[in-house]
Amino acid sequence: MTYCVGLTIDRGLVFMSDTRTNAGIDSISTFRKMHVWEEPGERVIVLMSAGNLATTQSVVSILDERNKAVNERSPSLFEMPSMYQTARLVGNVVKEVIASSAPVGQSADSYFNASFILGGQIRGTEPRLFMIYPEGNFIESSEDTPFFQVGETKYGKPIIVRSYDKAMSFAESVKLLLVSFDSTLKSNLSVGLPLDLLFYEKDSFKVGFRKRIGQDDAYYRTVSDGWSNALKQALKALPDFPEN
Amino acid sequence: MTYCVGLTIDRGLVFMSDTRTNAGIDSISTFRKMHVWEEPGERVIVLMSAGNLATTQSVVSILDERNKAVNERSPSLFEMPSMYQTARLVGNVVKEVIASSAPVGQSADSYFNASFILGGQIRGTEPRLFMIYPEGNFIESSEDTPFFQVGETKYGKPIIVRSYDKAMSFAESVKLLLVSFDSTLKSNLSVGLPLDLLFYEKDSFKVGFRKRIGQDDAYYRTVSDGWSNALKQALKALPDFPEN
Repeated sequence: MTYCVGLTIDRGLVFMSDTRTNAGIDSISTFRKMHVWEEPGERVIVLMSAGNLATTQSVVSILDERNKAVNERSPSLFEMPSMYQTARLVGNVVKEVIASSAPVGQSADSYFNASFILGGQIRGTEPRLFMIYPEGNFIESSEDTPFFQVGETKYGKPIIVRSYDKAMSFAESVKLLLVSFDSTLKSNLSVGLPLDLLFYEKDSFKVGFRKRIGQDDAYYRTVSDGWSNALKQALKALPDFPEN
Repeated sequence: MTYCVGLTIDRGLVFMSDTRTNAGIDSISTFRKMHVWEEPGERVIVLMSAGNLATTQSVVSILDERNKAVNERSPSLFEMPSMYQTARLVGNVVKEVIASSAPVGQSADSYFNASFILGGQIRGTEPRLFMIYPEGNFIESSEDTPFFQVGETKYGKPIIVRSYDKAMSFAESVKLLLVSFDSTLKSNLSVGLPLDLLFYEKDSFKVGFRKRIGQDDAYYRTVSDGWSNALKQALKALPDFPEN
């Protein structure tokens, strides 16, 4: 499994993904699930993936045009005039890859499935965030639904639902996401460290900040330990159930 | 879906279940998922269920011997000498009911599935807590795994994992469970109020406390609102991510 979150805030977009891939419980590997295409001053595109690794790697390779000779590559990802058209392009590639992997005949099913979060900004347009389904169609974030999760989404959802605020700073949003990821890491073995973090500042047209957060990261340890204690204190501070 | 939790603490057993049943998103009903058999001074048995409602109701009806005339009923549930044998009895009934509902032929699958949490105490033995699978087999709680959840378990798990303490009082454990249920209610439409609460005090051999908690319950409102605020405060109190 996987856990990835894309968040829209007033100041831009924040992305976080884990790196664990597993085929069964005894075959665990670390793979980057966050892919970035940057054309400084012009566009930043971030794609995060959950699902079958062969599928998601294929999608990224095709977007990179790795099926062409190195000097012939000019990814059409860099030619899209809007994020909406970028999402359509990615959706079409996803659909193709899954269709080509599906077993022959009627038994085609979800084994090769994958879902994606796509976000970014292209000069002349606003920052946008999309969720792309295995079928190649997609939805866009809005004021009412300002974030998308893919993968093992449930453990970490309640804290985002409760504490998201679009006026939050990057530093606050990273804190919120780390708490959400920490709850997931503590509850599910299929989500694992290190985490990839990226934030994109609106109208900057370059990657603002990018970091890989591992087990030894001092801030992660502070949040993880601090949050456990804070939750215990918060629970203690609530009145106990009145038995009578 | 459903959400039920059974918790063992030093002082006894605590049970909480929701009451929402749905067949599709447009067919929602309220059904009790917590069933209690009590023989004061002798035994208390609590059974909570998640899964296909026809299956879980059948299991309870068979345990009640509702297939016999009223004056001929003497449920064998009241004759089991230990909770282990009670769990075996329930497991066998579950297996039979699911087998009899399964479609004819090889296509039998999970549509009629159900899982159960069984807990209680019989005079002369310790309080016990079991989780019973659709296959009729079961596992028992232990020091390492002192609680079981069935149904929509993920949203409400992190807070229990972090804050459970076997020395907690009933009042504290109800608070913990209400927070766990509130997180689930806020995240998933298939889990709904009212909630059924029961606690059983060790060696009392009678139902200690039983209550149905609805939307208007003052304590539930206090916990729900208080927890939202407490989480926001706790998050605020953690240091923000250092960008540099």
